[in-house]
Amino acid sequence: MAEQKKLVSEITSMDEDFAKWYTDIVKKAEMADYSSVKGCIILRPYAQALWENIQSTLDRMFKETGHENVAMPIFIPESLLQKEKDHVEGFAPEVAWVTHGGSEKLEERLCVRPTSETLFCEHYAKVVRSWRDLPKLYNQWCSVVRWEKTTRPFLRSREFWWQEGHTVHATEAEAREETMRMLNVYATFCEEYLAIPVLKGRKTDKERFAGAVETYTIEAMMHDGKALQSGTSHYFGDGFARAFDMQYADKNNQLQYMHQTSWGASTRLIGAIIMTHGDNEGLVLPPKIAPTQLVVIPVAAHKPGVTDKASELYESIKKMGVRAKIDLSENSPGWKFAEYEMKGVPLRLEVGPRDIENGQCVLVRRDNREKTVVKFEELETVIPKLLEDLQQALFDKALKNREEHTYTAHSLEEMKQVAAEHTGFVKTMWCGGLACEEKVKEEAGMSSRCMPLAQENLGDTCPVCGKPAKHMIVWGVAY
Amino acid sequence: MAEQKKLVSEITSMDEDFAKWYTDIVKKAEMADYSSVKGCIILRPYAQALWENIQSTLDRMFKETGHENVAMPIFIPESLLQKEKDHVEGFAPEVAWVTHGGSEKLEERLCVRPTSETLFCEHYAKVVRSWRDLPKLYNQWCSVVRWEKTTRPFLRSREFWWQEGHTVHATEAEAREETMRMLNVYATFCEEYLAIPVLKGRKTDKERFAGAVETYTIEAMMHDGKALQSGTSHYFGDGFARAFDMQYADKNNQLQYMHQTSWGASTRLIGAIIMTHGDNEGLVLPPKIAPTQLVVIPVAAHKPGVTDKASELYESIKKMGVRAKIDLSENSPGWKFAEYEMKGVPLRLEVGPRDIENGQCVLVRRDNREKTVVKFEELETVIPKLLEDLQQALFDKALKNREEHTYTAHSLEEMKQVAAEHTGFVKTMWCGGLACEEKVKEEAGMSSRCMPLAQENLGDTCPVCGKPAKHMIVWGVAY
Repeated sequence: MAEQKKLVSEITSMDEDFAKWYTDIVKKAEMADYSSVKGCIILRPYAQALWENIQSTLDRMFKETGHENVAMPIFIPESLLQKEKDHVEGFAPEVAWVTHGGSEKLEERLCVRPTSETLFCEHYAKVVRSWRDLPKLYNQWCSVVRWEKTTRPFLRSREFWWQEGHTVHATEAEAREETMRMLNVYATFCEEYLAIPVLKGRKTDKERFAGAVETYTIEAMMHDGKALQSGTSHYFGDGFARAFDMQYADKNNQLQYMHQTSWGASTRLIGAIIMTHGDNEGLVLPPKIAPTQLVVIPVAAHKPGVTDKASELYESIKKMGVRAKIDLSENSPGWKFAEYEMKGVPLRLEVGPRDIENGQCVLVRRDNREKTVVKFEELETVIPKLLEDLQQALFDKALKNREEHTYTAHSLEEMKQVAAEHTGFVKTMWCGGLACEEKVKEEAGMSSRCMPLAQENLGDTCPVCGKPAKHMIVWGVAY
Repeated sequence: MAEQKKLVSEITSMDEDFAKWYTDIVKKAEMADYSSVKGCIILRPYAQALWENIQSTLDRMFKETGHENVAMPIFIPESLLQKEKDHVEGFAPEVAWVTHGGSEKLEERLCVRPTSETLFCEHYAKVVRSWRDLPKLYNQWCSVVRWEKTTRPFLRSREFWWQEGHTVHATEAEAREETMRMLNVYATFCEEYLAIPVLKGRKTDKERFAGAVETYTIEAMMHDGKALQSGTSHYFGDGFARAFDMQYADKNNQLQYMHQTSWGASTRLIGAIIMTHGDNEGLVLPPKIAPTQLVVIPVAAHKPGVTDKASELYESIKKMGVRAKIDLSENSPGWKFAEYEMKGVPLRLEVGPRDIENGQCVLVRRDNREKTVVKFEELETVIPKLLEDLQQALFDKALKNREEHTYTAHSLEEMKQVAAEHTGFVKTMWCGGLACEEKVKEEAGMSSRCMPLAQENLGDTCPVCGKPAKHMIVWGVAY
């Protein structure tokens, strides 16, 4: 137990300093590391394995909704980035510029892609000729670069890994449908796989993506009550299509502009998992996405038969389709318990000489430390059940946290008071005006998160200016 | 048939102009496209799907041999690249330099990674403390950038996609074993999955990787007799370890330098597939790696019951675990035949009204156009058999091509004569001297491909200088 304490004691308590707790976890659970490239991180094997599980699940969902993967170039010529005015204004200040190839100065600067709308537009303008070629539903998995001033692992870094979907459609209606379809894919993924409840909604004009007509978002609440934008889906109208001359011949052989969407989710989701489910002992990973779902730890492994039985159980559990691991290292059981708690492995199976005599072992849940004594022959039914329960319990707990930290306000004064006393979501009505949005930011320190798709009527007037309200909106302090 | 001819007639015959044939195929089979970023390509959905099949198979083989994936930053600071002298000399002339982040000039230039040895070294120096931490067996999938002057899709481009494995070990023996293990993984993959026979061998000092002690390679022969280096595995000794201060405490608590390897294979393999198996009608894809293994094409689809039966067959074939597709578009059967031949789909299933009456359909092999009439109830046994036969036939054909274009020479005169008359592999003995290697390049126009692991004794002297021979070596004209 001394060892166990040691490992854990190196973590700052989340109640004391949540930000410090977060970086401690990232380091201690061996998720990410820094390199000498300022603001860029290394995804260590454990984070990469988690990301690969996220990728394979999302990728399957994308393919089931008819999307194909492609790979676009890593660079964008300056002139191409500049074709859409709003887009370049949004991104140019934060791109990395390549000016030389070997010893030769380039005729035109290239930026390392911050996002790839412009490349997709150029390609679609070339390959789409007629209505028969539509829709084109492309996605790519890659990393992108944005020259951020302040960075935090997974939440904001100069390079991050993501997928970006880019689609073109014959009609506005189809493009709008796609925008909502992918928002729903993200929401389903977050809730069912990551056990993170999300608010679906539309961003204000101030917060929407550079060049988009409308940006939709899923907003999650972290354990500390702060908001994390966890995925976005944009409807572009035909703005880029006009800038990039993306036309197709319709059924009457008339040239029409395409209607476009894009949508993205990133390694930020790893940050969301950490900050939604983690506790003072380390990570807590949702079983559906955990690289290791169960770890077998022999107790008193030197006693005859213990290692053999543990290995036998491990093999049979793997055969059940559970992502299992066994730790036969020379570390003490206490050390191992702490290590896999730090790594957030959902279930721990302990088996020692006494257990073997009784034909049983102990399963310990990571989230609530609940111990279940299980007969060997019942493992096949108990393990899947416990994994399922744990997955649900994480979701329920996160939802409860969000509900407990969601407030309603009817005046700016009330908003300021709530913001001063709590961190969470604050629901209000809103006139839709930028001035009121900026005033809330300035006086209550909260940014608009989204206008939820599930609108509620909290009153008739904007709490800031008193004019008639147009939307219900949610405010928060965002990562 | 007129349509079919039209599609095919747009392809240059491979016997007329192999290079032109290649670029025609890349374009017509919708594998790659150009963007406005000079020297970079777009992987279109079909090439990306092929690459994903290559990735998932190799990734499984890497994981089975104990490797873990990570993700390193996209950038390398200039000072880090310069730490190993040979390495920087090899790569600095061909990297892309980032000099500005947004509007701000960087204090130190960053290059976009051309390969990531330096980043892995820095990380290993940090995370490996003792012999208990070794070996570290990491791999990453990413794209890299090398500022090439002349480019060709898949074969040589400024950006390409690859995996790079980087491992560190306690001893030279273990690192050497790893180097050979991964060379064998590549060879097995190429031969069993891509149906491409490869020569395994060691590169000469002139041709080895910048900073490596030894570079091993798999060399494939394309249909035109030219060589394509298709994967490399490097043994680094402790050269980088000394430059990057990568030490670990051994069991006696003495500091020791780590021993290192790296190994890579890239989207170049797509070029290898095209140029090994393709023909004048288009791509020919090995079944094990083809995105679509079988396409169902209804004939006289307007006749009652045809589309239904075709769809029913398609569904049952998918259930067999075959990657199948059905084409119910309004294009004519002839057009469809030509289209899927262009795409290299291994098997085509044709089914029309007469077939249905007889309870049968026709399977057509892509490689030799052999038609087999198959009763519906026999599809489950015939399809896997045909796919297997086709896979083997492609390998056999490629091996035969290599054997027919492999020559032996005993003098420089003979080498020059063979090179003037044929394109292929030329086997000779070699003294091991750089001067002789350069002379062969200059006078016979061939570069050294490798010193095969399977050495043969062709004589006692070097055919160039007449001094005692040290190795049997293979020469060729390389892509």
